[in-house]
Amino acid sequence: MAVSQKVFDVAIVGGGPAGMSAAVYAARRGLAVVLFEGKLLGGTVNEATEIDNYLGFSKTHGMELSKKFAEHVKSFPIEVREEAVVEARAAGAAGAGKGFSVKTANGECRAKSVVLAMGAKFQALNVPGEKEFAGKGVSYCATCDGYFFKGKRVAVVGGGDSALSSALYLSDLAKEVLIIHRRGEFRAEEEWQKRVQARVKEGKIRLALKRNVVEIRGKQFMDSIVLEDAETKARTTEKLDGIFVYVGSAPLSMLAKQLGVELTEKGFVKINDGCSTNVPGVFAAGDITGKLLQIAMAVAQGAQAALSAYSFLRSAK
Amino acid sequence: MAVSQKVFDVAIVGGGPAGMSAAVYAARRGLAVVLFEGKLLGGTVNEATEIDNYLGFSKTHGMELSKKFAEHVKSFPIEVREEAVVEARAAGAAGAGKGFSVKTANGECRAKSVVLAMGAKFQALNVPGEKEFAGKGVSYCATCDGYFFKGKRVAVVGGGDSALSSALYLSDLAKEVLIIHRRGEFRAEEEWQKRVQARVKEGKIRLALKRNVVEIRGKQFMDSIVLEDAETKARTTEKLDGIFVYVGSAPLSMLAKQLGVELTEKGFVKINDGCSTNVPGVFAAGDITGKLLQIAMAVAQGAQAALSAYSFLRSAK
Repeated sequence: MAVSQKVFDVAIVGGGPAGMSAAVYAARRGLAVVLFEGKLLGGTVNEATEIDNYLGFSKTHGMELSKKFAEHVKSFPIEVREEAVVEARAAGAAGAGKGFSVKTANGECRAKSVVLAMGAKFQALNVPGEKEFAGKGVSYCATCDGYFFKGKRVAVVGGGDSALSSALYLSDLAKEVLIIHRRGEFRAEEEWQKRVQARVKEGKIRLALKRNVVEIRGKQFMDSIVLEDAETKARTTEKLDGIFVYVGSAPLSMLAKQLGVELTEKGFVKINDGCSTNVPGVFAAGDITGKLLQIAMAVAQGAQAALSAYSFLRSAK
Repeated sequence: MAVSQKVFDVAIVGGGPAGMSAAVYAARRGLAVVLFEGKLLGGTVNEATEIDNYLGFSKTHGMELSKKFAEHVKSFPIEVREEAVVEARAAGAAGAGKGFSVKTANGECRAKSVVLAMGAKFQALNVPGEKEFAGKGVSYCATCDGYFFKGKRVAVVGGGDSALSSALYLSDLAKEVLIIHRRGEFRAEEEWQKRVQARVKEGKIRLALKRNVVEIRGKQFMDSIVLEDAETKARTTEKLDGIFVYVGSAPLSMLAKQLGVELTEKGFVKINDGCSTNVPGVFAAGDITGKLLQIAMAVAQGAQAALSAYSFLRSAK
């Protein structure tokens, strides 16, 4: 396994808005920065349909905004590595101040500080059939897979911004979209709710409120789901070609645990106002902190984490 | 005095990045929003020279970014009033839940909640001659007044990002720029420091470190300043046509006090993670909170404040 000779000032794990903002701030402070992202720069922003709440970008799209972010990062001398980090730990004894070791499939990299910005992944429904039909009708990303369901019947599960914006996106492609939500009302922005109601009137979207998905059925591909009434527990079956799950997100905190970083009850990384964790030299930003799961917050926390890392490095000199 | 009949859901005081982001988030939640800004939408962003650390906008300028922000705001049904708020107080007895009254020179306006986003203003040097020659050589905004000093000799006081970026901006216009800083090193981003050093080599910028400005002198206009060595206390005189002061910012918290909002020792508005103040229905965001004086943070806090105001309004129903 190749060990890179260079010791970076800061290794940023995750190339979503938090990681990218941290990279920009760190680079402008003159730090040697390496940014790891196993997938596409932009993180979950890439999976967003319309975005209209990050100040300065009126009615943009996930991929478009993501591209702008990546261009910004690439205007600085930041080493972007398209590799997933598989392990992160203190180099030397914990607390010895020897910095950190970050491993990918391609080798090991050393850094004096770390910014954890791995974000969160979709939460599964955890019902029978979900794993079996994943990629065979079950999806967690409308912008990724929506096109395969052109002219077909699909469902979206959830009541937040992601669920409703994805349902709207899908309603342009699919024959009909069924929104399934366990509660009687949505928690999504009024803007999304209004647009969903308009589509309901057009017959493009149908609502199944106070319903839970209890099973996904099919043969090679899924072909139906079983719904349960949240109150009466009565069950019904819906014939569907696909189902998109947007019921929340779970932090990707494996590396945080390896580093000995304290987590909240829900598994998010505990940070203070300066985005510092309990481990000196380890900072965190974005969805992984479980604060406000918004681009604006990820960008601000990334900036804060980088500035705190900079102060840490200066005081360690 | 005209009393507007309409009761807004949220009145936002201040049209900088924090106030504008709050307006966008509130509007997307379907709230009736009024935004007050006595000067130009954009706040202190308008006074910034180059901006390269708000993710997504590579190498932009203050006025340019500000314009993008304003366009974004104007794409929503947000009532923007170009009026300075002169008074804010609880309508009815404090804590009675009757909402708030916000007054401008043109009248009174009622709202169920308030977001304080008045920002911070420049801190003065507080030395003899400063007030006397304000606007007569003494300035707090290089982008506003820099042009008047074309081909002349000016000084910039301070060691942070605003000071150094303004000195660089002025060095393109002025004959020579003297940077005066009370410490031996700058706290500005490495990027600005490098560029200043390059200009020092070119003879466009000269440094006076560990020096304090103790007096500003002149007749109709300022013509010189007195510097004091921070260690030896020895005094010298510099002949100058102008001086730009960037020694920090002070929160604009008068309205916060009127509302009974708790402040920190330094006069910033005390907020919790949700950008709530101690007064139910009053939220705060941006520089006035004294957290991280960066656009990214103001935008994130604006979003948070609006979402908290939304929750407040829903639970008050």
